[in-house]
Amino acid sequence: MTVELISVGTEILLGNIVNTNAAFLAERIAVLGLSCYHQSAVGDNEERLEDAVRLALSRSDIVILSGGLGPTKDDLTKEVTAKVFEKKLVEDAHTKKRIKAYFERIHSNEVTSNNWKQALIPEGATVVDNHNGTAPGLILEGENGKTAILLPGPPNEIKPMFEQDIAPYLNRLQPEGIYSKMVKVCSIGESRAETMVADIMDAQTNPTLAPYAKTGEVHFRVTAKAKDEETANALIEPMVKELYKRFGNKIYTTEEEVTLEAAIVELLKDRGMTVTTAESCTGGLLAGRMMNVAGASCVYNEGYITYSNSSKERLLGVSEETLKKYGAVSAETAAEMARGAAKAADADAALSVTGIAGPDGGSKEKPVGLVYVGCYVNGKVRTEEFMFTGNREKNRDYAVVRALTVLREELICL
Amino acid sequence: MTVELISVGTEILLGNIVNTNAAFLAERIAVLGLSCYHQSAVGDNEERLEDAVRLALSRSDIVILSGGLGPTKDDLTKEVTAKVFEKKLVEDAHTKKRIKAYFERIHSNEVTSNNWKQALIPEGATVVDNHNGTAPGLILEGENGKTAILLPGPPNEIKPMFEQDIAPYLNRLQPEGIYSKMVKVCSIGESRAETMVADIMDAQTNPTLAPYAKTGEVHFRVTAKAKDEETANALIEPMVKELYKRFGNKIYTTEEEVTLEAAIVELLKDRGMTVTTAESCTGGLLAGRMMNVAGASCVYNEGYITYSNSSKERLLGVSEETLKKYGAVSAETAAEMARGAAKAADADAALSVTGIAGPDGGSKEKPVGLVYVGCYVNGKVRTEEFMFTGNREKNRDYAVVRALTVLREELICL
Repeated sequence: MTVELISVGTEILLGNIVNTNAAFLAERIAVLGLSCYHQSAVGDNEERLEDAVRLALSRSDIVILSGGLGPTKDDLTKEVTAKVFEKKLVEDAHTKKRIKAYFERIHSNEVTSNNWKQALIPEGATVVDNHNGTAPGLILEGENGKTAILLPGPPNEIKPMFEQDIAPYLNRLQPEGIYSKMVKVCSIGESRAETMVADIMDAQTNPTLAPYAKTGEVHFRVTAKAKDEETANALIEPMVKELYKRFGNKIYTTEEEVTLEAAIVELLKDRGMTVTTAESCTGGLLAGRMMNVAGASCVYNEGYITYSNSSKERLLGVSEETLKKYGAVSAETAAEMARGAAKAADADAALSVTGIAGPDGGSKEKPVGLVYVGCYVNGKVRTEEFMFTGNREKNRDYAVVRALTVLREELICL
Repeated sequence: MTVELISVGTEILLGNIVNTNAAFLAERIAVLGLSCYHQSAVGDNEERLEDAVRLALSRSDIVILSGGLGPTKDDLTKEVTAKVFEKKLVEDAHTKKRIKAYFERIHSNEVTSNNWKQALIPEGATVVDNHNGTAPGLILEGENGKTAILLPGPPNEIKPMFEQDIAPYLNRLQPEGIYSKMVKVCSIGESRAETMVADIMDAQTNPTLAPYAKTGEVHFRVTAKAKDEETANALIEPMVKELYKRFGNKIYTTEEEVTLEAAIVELLKDRGMTVTTAESCTGGLLAGRMMNVAGASCVYNEGYITYSNSSKERLLGVSEETLKKYGAVSAETAAEMARGAAKAADADAALSVTGIAGPDGGSKEKPVGLVYVGCYVNGKVRTEEFMFTGNREKNRDYAVVRALTVLREELICL
């Protein structure tokens, strides 16, 4: 079964927005074991949209359209798809009720006549409720065995709708279900990680193994086709075990939604420990990332951004001598920053980062990209030197991930 | 003249990467005054790629292909395009020399026979040097008046190549040049900003005005067609003046590459002032954003992340009474945080943020999304209450931009 994506919206053609929906849908479709050979984007233009839908249906079994379901005259996805499928638009009482309730919920009296346009559906279409907006999703199965799935454009509407209703629908269409597990690895480079599983990737049939490179991490998706979840798990588990054999405790989670920072917050909670941060070149990004985790306040009370030497001395107790002898960007300073931060915050663990993010400030001995991480855990300090080769933004992003990775390595040894 | 984009790469079809190249190219093409009605993505598959190129050439004057120029057998863009244009591939001595020099420069002895494949070009094609990789760009002008432009996939290669060589090439093809200026506005909502220029947008011919909504900002691009830059500027300047008349000092820059945080760092430098930050729910993101600016160390020495009440008291001197009476998320606490941070860091200005980012921690009186910003400048404190309606990530991002905006408003009054 082949699926094809059409993103509808002039804002995509003008480059006003990055089309993250296409990447989201493409990944989910691949996970479902469906083949996708084409993606396209067209504007809010009736003729070109119709051409795009007809072309897609001529070469794929299912076409998923995103966007163009809004209340304005510009929004044509429903009208054009109905035309291609030769269906009339009829008012759907259930959707009309939901739109009314939605506007009541957000205390808005702004239901214009336009909004009722969203209650019109192609005759015979299946309505998929939108829990985050007014445009429902629609599934339109043609007599020719071809299907169109219409989804709203806003990411916060399309994502939950796809997960909750569209993915199960697509799964039911297939003779066998698709089940997958994510294995997330840190503390290892992308190419090295892929080399370590090259033999598995070459030999894979069912389950399959797909690597996704992330900044400082590699995620492996293990996917099995099977008649039910139990059978799938029996296929998936041995490969996950094999990955554990190869990557050991570099695997920080096998849960889809767990991030590296969430795994670390969990480790800290388990051990009843608190953590703090002292940042120079990352300037708050490390703390900001840790605080992505809802409930991080259990393990994090306070942190320090110490850009100047005097703030490193005053807030963290780094010695003037160390700064003079080794410089602010040094393993010695990183170590004293971590130890000092733990003391100042009365925390069990502390991460420090000091480096030269660029583009200026580099020298021959200490070039742009040189970063030191200090990690204090229960009285002991470890330091690491990194040499990043990106621009300012990339160097800072990598510094954050590497620092988190070092802390995790120390915590799992406890 | 119409342009069409084809992104080549199985990693796009699998959703392994977000197609930021398409957004980049689309925006640049729009700025150049060219029309783009189609974007598509295909994998590294000869037949489907050929179909895509033929379809694109049948309906557009210029097709820009990105990706698939690498050294491996998978990379087919050049081969397929040459086939469609009925051209042989021939070795280009200049490119061969450059590839050799590139590998010498990165001290790599890994020039495999594969790499020489990148020196092959379709007969008659114009070579565009790649200063950041080995795959050159190629411009192939067919006898039928149709043109294919082949660009490498990595963003750090395609972007400089497009700016330096492809944009001027496209501009030369047109009877008149295209020139533009970016006007960036803050302190105003997107829909309100667009309403304020609706009359201009309706009446626009030359120059044109295009709005781009960013988190907490609106950017307007003013674009003129003219025979030379001077004539273009004579068209652009009156519209920029008109925008100043309407938005006044809400315009923070008319420079393409200046960010809001960079504009603020500039304001602080001009006034010889330093700034600090005290963050609760944003947990370092505000400082991290300020520190995006290379050279921010001139105006920023240290900052505080104060998640717990005790850290607000100890590091910032927020009074126990205030925390008890009004709570940690209150205008009163935000004010004391800002004042205390300025004092602790001995800074002329300070920003504080305290709020409920979600998803937990909300109540009826203080729901998720409630954020207070405190802004201390030269002895005076201003506080602002915001009610954001996004998820944790969005609420924190908006809190950061709103805080920066408040600081800017105070600084420009000095």
